[in-house]
Amino acid sequence: MTDLLPFVADLPLVDHHCHGVVTGDVARADFEAMLTEADTTSPLGTSLFDSLIGLAVRERCAPVLDLPKHAPAEAYLERRARLGAAEVARRFLRATGTTDFLLDGGFRPDSLTTTGEFAEMAGGRAHDVVRLEQVAEAVIRGSTAAGFAADFAGELGKRAATAVGLKSIAAYRVGLELAGERPSPPEVEAAAGRWLARIEAGEPVRLADEVLHRFLVFTGLDLGLPVQFHVGYGDADVDLHRCDPLRLTGLLRATRDRGVPILLLHNYPFHRNAAYLAQVFEHVFVDVGLATHNAGFRAPAILAELLEIAPFGKVLFSTDAFGLAELYHLGTSLFRQGLSDFLRAALAADALSEVDAVRLCALVGHENAKRIYRWEHV
Amino acid sequence: MTDLLPFVADLPLVDHHCHGVVTGDVARADFEAMLTEADTTSPLGTSLFDSLIGLAVRERCAPVLDLPKHAPAEAYLERRARLGAAEVARRFLRATGTTDFLLDGGFRPDSLTTTGEFAEMAGGRAHDVVRLEQVAEAVIRGSTAAGFAADFAGELGKRAATAVGLKSIAAYRVGLELAGERPSPPEVEAAAGRWLARIEAGEPVRLADEVLHRFLVFTGLDLGLPVQFHVGYGDADVDLHRCDPLRLTGLLRATRDRGVPILLLHNYPFHRNAAYLAQVFEHVFVDVGLATHNAGFRAPAILAELLEIAPFGKVLFSTDAFGLAELYHLGTSLFRQGLSDFLRAALAADALSEVDAVRLCALVGHENAKRIYRWEHV
Amino acid sequence: MTDLLPFVADLPLVDHHCHGVVTGDVARADFEAMLTEADTTSPLGTSLFDSLIGLAVRERCAPVLDLPKHAPAEAYLERRARLGAAEVARRFLRATGTTDFLLDGGFRPDSLTTTGEFAEMAGGRAHDVVRLEQVAEAVIRGSTAAGFAADFAGELGKRAATAVGLKSIAAYRVGLELAGERPSPPEVEAAAGRWLARIEAGEPVRLADEVLHRFLVFTGLDLGLPVQFHVGYGDADVDLHRCDPLRLTGLLRATRDRGVPILLLHNYPFHRNAAYLAQVFEHVFVDVGLATHNAGFRAPAILAELLEIAPFGKVLFSTDAFGLAELYHLGTSLFRQGLSDFLRAALAADALSEVDAVRLCALVGHENAKRIYRWEHV
Repeated sequence: MTDLLPFVADLPLVDHHCHGVVTGDVARADFEAMLTEADTTSPLGTSLFDSLIGLAVRERCAPVLDLPKHAPAEAYLERRARLGAAEVARRFLRATGTTDFLLDGGFRPDSLTTTGEFAEMAGGRAHDVVRLEQVAEAVIRGSTAAGFAADFAGELGKRAATAVGLKSIAAYRVGLELAGERPSPPEVEAAAGRWLARIEAGEPVRLADEVLHRFLVFTGLDLGLPVQFHVGYGDADVDLHRCDPLRLTGLLRATRDRGVPILLLHNYPFHRNAAYLAQVFEHVFVDVGLATHNAGFRAPAILAELLEIAPFGKVLFSTDAFGLAELYHLGTSLFRQGLSDFLRAALAADALSEVDAVRLCALVGHENAKRIYRWEHV
Repeated sequence: MTDLLPFVADLPLVDHHCHGVVTGDVARADFEAMLTEADTTSPLGTSLFDSLIGLAVRERCAPVLDLPKHAPAEAYLERRARLGAAEVARRFLRATGTTDFLLDGGFRPDSLTTTGEFAEMAGGRAHDVVRLEQVAEAVIRGSTAAGFAADFAGELGKRAATAVGLKSIAAYRVGLELAGERPSPPEVEAAAGRWLARIEAGEPVRLADEVLHRFLVFTGLDLGLPVQFHVGYGDADVDLHRCDPLRLTGLLRATRDRGVPILLLHNYPFHRNAAYLAQVFEHVFVDVGLATHNAGFRAPAILAELLEIAPFGKVLFSTDAFGLAELYHLGTSLFRQGLSDFLRAALAADALSEVDAVRLCALVGHENAKRIYRWEHV
Repeated sequence: MTDLLPFVADLPLVDHHCHGVVTGDVARADFEAMLTEADTTSPLGTSLFDSLIGLAVRERCAPVLDLPKHAPAEAYLERRARLGAAEVARRFLRATGTTDFLLDGGFRPDSLTTTGEFAEMAGGRAHDVVRLEQVAEAVIRGSTAAGFAADFAGELGKRAATAVGLKSIAAYRVGLELAGERPSPPEVEAAAGRWLARIEAGEPVRLADEVLHRFLVFTGLDLGLPVQFHVGYGDADVDLHRCDPLRLTGLLRATRDRGVPILLLHNYPFHRNAAYLAQVFEHVFVDVGLATHNAGFRAPAILAELLEIAPFGKVLFSTDAFGLAELYHLGTSLFRQGLSDFLRAALAADALSEVDAVRLCALVGHENAKRIYRWEHV
């Protein structure tokens, strides 16, 4: 880890996948619970500050709040509380150097900033990504087995009119072993019927059905909007062994001729597998968001692994920051660190020219995202 | 790889998973067979000294036997024979700087030191870890299908009275795809009946039944003792693709509210997956024992990968050394090297303070183990 | 990445798995399509020159064509066209320092050099590796269900008479989950019957049947010739999740007593899993060909991971170069870089002596291959 290359430090970024910030103040336990993918601190373990991300908060976030590097956790949290949630968020979001944020508003929207609030706080542009499952869960109650397909398509069309992309969380619900063909109308109707029966039997309105997740994805692709997939690393609800991106191979093969981008998010610890898919499938793009801030000091090692075989035109930047303002800054700052370390090593070995290095940065930092999401058309 | 940081060189260690030392002298073929996870040398390959662990023996063990670094294998083995097994074991065990050894006595106990002999040889404390399957295999012959559950629980209670932990080798027998619920008494009875029938039909008394391995684990958790799982890397008997720790997700989800630690041992090459589990499940702890000494010069790279997302309060040290005295020394010495290299890099990048580095060492080196195993209570 | 150690720069190499070179000139689109495992450039992405392999071409190949390092892609392709395919091939093949090439002639033989042409162009020796599936597909049409086993064995015996090894591409057709026993004659007959029925029904003559791929492998082992397996990384036809070498565990366990080498090719991103198999199974050997040139500047990191637990007597060199003359040079040059970087780091840490380093190079560079393939006996 070395000083940032100047053209990396100044690189305008598009964060193509993140969420809103919590609007209220945050107590220590809540802070720790939002810091990593753990739901809570462990009575058997120690503070979640005892981790690479905890160290990174104290190293990289403390100075943004006018504290010395490595300030103790208690001092950090006190200072944070004194500044107030709004000022803290404003500082961290503006420290990112991000011009455009793509916000997935589908998770706990009530406790987070809206897209408009976020943009104002960040002093940048914010664009909406629509979570497919959230639309389906809104539609199903007023629908029927026979009507669900059309009702969903109609509602998605409306919501997507001002969105730049869509997102599937099939990984969280059924894993990524989605079949490689569009489900037929009778299959969708039967699956919707089963879902409605479960809801009528008192189960929560929670989509978890391979046929329907797949139907949502194909319906989304019909709109021509890029579809993001949660892949790999997530919280304890994920069955991580069912979230290897390679399980999507059949679906990717079936959709490669449509010319609609599919974006594999996060991917850790399967990021080399994702890079393979980005190389061999024309419409597949990848990032290592979420892992970047969680791995702190080790983020550069992970990014370097992704870049082994993923073409530079297929790699994007995202933080997957959620809730805590620190995470936007950490995700961004550690991504810049990783990119700079990678390029410094390559330049030192004379493996590329500085012109190439600058071009690579522009692609990964913002050009790929702008080419794919095309928000000027919205 | 650089000189050890002084506070890493002096760090007292708890080796939370190892085995006894062979008591007799060791011929070259036997030495090579114990050096790695290969059963034997290959007539198609070359000496197992031609490996990173072989080089590490000549680099790091030769000086302990008063030879120069990189002494040839023949000279090394001659010197070893001249000193005699007892003196060799004494030297290597005492070179570790380990205060407490947790010994799994369940594999080939007849050829190895007992816990008492080991402690005396090592000049440290030694504690027992009881292998669940060994108890079950001792109990089954005098038991019945209907009585097995109670007989096992009774015998385990007795044997565990002076133990600090338990261990499952389900990975070696049926893989780690253990279901996420406690088997019911009828299920256990039926499985015990099937096992007894196989024994009566002349098969060896070898437990390999998903229901029973799972029953053993839940019965062990009832005692409140930490349960270790063999995970990942092992010898040719392992079906490594069935030993990814992610396969334990269901069982871990089902046991997280019990407050009893579960320890994932070894984990290589799935150590990043294990680190994920340690982050999201409150009761899960991890190490990279066995890989540490096998990877020699590359051990620091593996430890660094583990530490990416595993909280420092959830990482332990073990050697998984078995039989050869060299392995205790190598596992320990290479773990210190890895920890030191990791921290030197982090310090050089100003990613943590020296105070943090010292604290991290204490957690991983001994504090986590003492908090979990609580042998002062035994 | 540093200057090559002199004994690595001068190391004679055996490339134990590669293919012929294309005989004609190559337009830009075709060049890009052959550069990586992508079938084509992506209209959604950018040039495939924007990748580590693209940078490596401009860094390492441009000077061989008398251009400065990092020459632009257009200039490179112009120069290449001006020199002509034959001169380009001659330059790159002779730059490798490879004494012996083992050529798998089973893929698109019509557009590539023959073994004899290749040897002359390269100024080295070239040996044949016979692709099992190609023989089966040649035999099946003139055969019957009952006669296929004998017909295949007869034809393979003939073709293998002047070959040094055999190759299975089961990975591409059915994945690597091959059962751990030789299929019985009735099973082979039934499978051959099913295949013939598909052919008679108008399907292409393409073998994809677990029983038959397995039969081919066992028949090959009967000849005592080393059997190579495509493993892991490949083009979009591969279901990569079915190509983890660990899926071969049962077959490897079943064949370990035959004393016939099995070679796991490529392996990326499962190369650590392959290294495990090379350690625990006497007859298993590994490489990281294909990934080496694709990962460009990152190739050394991948080779270092392979060497963690794979014994040096079990690791071989290959490029898996196909078609483009650049790939032979890149695969070789980056392999030397990886080996040199690995050894420089080990020497700097005093983890081995220079004598050991030289010995390790000889094993991996050519001795292992000569011991296994024994072409002087052909």
